[in-house]
Amino acid sequence: MAWDDGYIAVDWGTTNRRAYLIDAGGECVREFEDGKGVLSVPKDGFHSAVGEIKAHLGDRPLLLAGMVGSNRGWAEAPYVPCPGGLRELADGIVWVEEGAGIVPGMSYVGNGRADVMRGEEVQVLGAVAAGLIPPDCTVCHPGTHNKWVSLRDGGIQHFRSVMTGELFNLLKQHSILSDLLSQDALEGEAFDAGVRTGLTSDDLQSELFAVRARVLLGEAQRADAASYTSGLLIGSDVRIGLKEAGEGPVIVMARPELTRLYAAAIRAAGRGATELDGERVFLAGMARIKELV
Amino acid sequence: MAWDDGYIAVDWGTTNRRAYLIDAGGECVREFEDGKGVLSVPKDGFHSAVGEIKAHLGDRPLLLAGMVGSNRGWAEAPYVPCPGGLRELADGIVWVEEGAGIVPGMSYVGNGRADVMRGEEVQVLGAVAAGLIPPDCTVCHPGTHNKWVSLRDGGIQHFRSVMTGELFNLLKQHSILSDLLSQDALEGEAFDAGVRTGLTSDDLQSELFAVRARVLLGEAQRADAASYTSGLLIGSDVRIGLKEAGEGPVIVMARPELTRLYAAAIRAAGRGATELDGERVFLAGMARIKELV
Repeated sequence: MAWDDGYIAVDWGTTNRRAYLIDAGGECVREFEDGKGVLSVPKDGFHSAVGEIKAHLGDRPLLLAGMVGSNRGWAEAPYVPCPGGLRELADGIVWVEEGAGIVPGMSYVGNGRADVMRGEEVQVLGAVAAGLIPPDCTVCHPGTHNKWVSLRDGGIQHFRSVMTGELFNLLKQHSILSDLLSQDALEGEAFDAGVRTGLTSDDLQSELFAVRARVLLGEAQRADAASYTSGLLIGSDVRIGLKEAGEGPVIVMARPELTRLYAAAIRAAGRGATELDGERVFLAGMARIKELV
Repeated sequence: MAWDDGYIAVDWGTTNRRAYLIDAGGECVREFEDGKGVLSVPKDGFHSAVGEIKAHLGDRPLLLAGMVGSNRGWAEAPYVPCPGGLRELADGIVWVEEGAGIVPGMSYVGNGRADVMRGEEVQVLGAVAAGLIPPDCTVCHPGTHNKWVSLRDGGIQHFRSVMTGELFNLLKQHSILSDLLSQDALEGEAFDAGVRTGLTSDDLQSELFAVRARVLLGEAQRADAASYTSGLLIGSDVRIGLKEAGEGPVIVMARPELTRLYAAAIRAAGRGATELDGERVFLAGMARIKELV
């Protein structure tokens, strides 16, 4: 199948997938998105799940990235160890069938730590390839599991995951704080107060319980609890991430509603922050990987 | 109704309840326990829920403690502020009907913090009343929300809640770590390693994600993940609690399977720990409150 006639790039995550038809000139001409994340596809159902994408976007070769390459996905694409860049990702592609390649994720082992990511690396390295961020910088990539990524010479040197989004969702859906967290988290005074606590306190397990106690004792407003808790978790996340961040502004890359909150917390910590839309740079990364194959 | 002919003491928590028939001589002669915690009783259903207890233990006056006195319980018994002891708890009893009194919980506001507890205070102060712990000491009371309680002159000076048990359950039941945490957490090398990390790291949100990464990358055994994670959360809890703990051994008061793990973590931090069964001292506290009414 001729890649130069155009291809489909797929960002296939745990809970949803986004597919983009790229034409021969490298332009994205059509998109398709649905909630069919990796967890909702049976192990032997990926060929037909890909058929749905082709039904929407045409019968083109596919380049897939994200959790589709995990042990819960179509086929496991072994992690590329740090340090590495787009060249190493391209070399690590696993071809599951003709005209369908899975881009691997990346791993880090060092300093007594171990970490993994799948999907964010394409966006981060794509942003460098597109000239949108410098080859040496720190990227903060919020989501279910926020990633703090250290770039050097255009490659990923090391990174750290922080479980912030998932923790917030667990607390919101299943915890003693559920009824307090049903509202949307918004920027403002309560969020800022949470950020200040998160940036300075290393007692997260205790501060979380205090959210409820403060409301019960009239020391905080019930309506502020979701914004305060979001600020607390994001502030704590930023406290962790900035410990290893180099100089210069931190690039915050994700959906705009998330980058705004993280950028506010990073600025509250006295650092500069530049926001970038993650979707845009995903396609830049995939285009470069396609050239390198 | 004559209290001196005996009474029923009830420890009524969020998810279960334990009732004890105390005879005229102060001895516990019969017990009753079931899963009818406060959350499973409708607001107007407490009178009949108490009828079930009386059907098992006899028609005696009742002294109730725990979440039954919260805004989700039978009637709200306003928190007694710190510092306070059994005298203040007895003075704060709310009589919901003839021969049925609810012992209040305690609150703390100070140092920019706010905290609440319901139920643990009876056990802690009961242990002092029974002469089982000194009037000046630090008590660690593990459970869904661990309480670090500072006693002075036999009263509770201040306390701090840490959301450890609930966080572990959320991660076990609903998170990306669920499949790794299905086994029981046990003492041993993996637990000790988790404790060491929790005692020294203030990056809990990051260490939790690393549990999965370490297994995926072969840096840790899948079978060790539950014990390691339990140690990580308990070690982090102990790191927080010991910051405010006075000298002398910490009294660890709860069910024996929990006190064992916390005592191990406290000893790993270089402090002494003495274990005490929480149920036994609950009755000592209730007996003293009954005398003070």
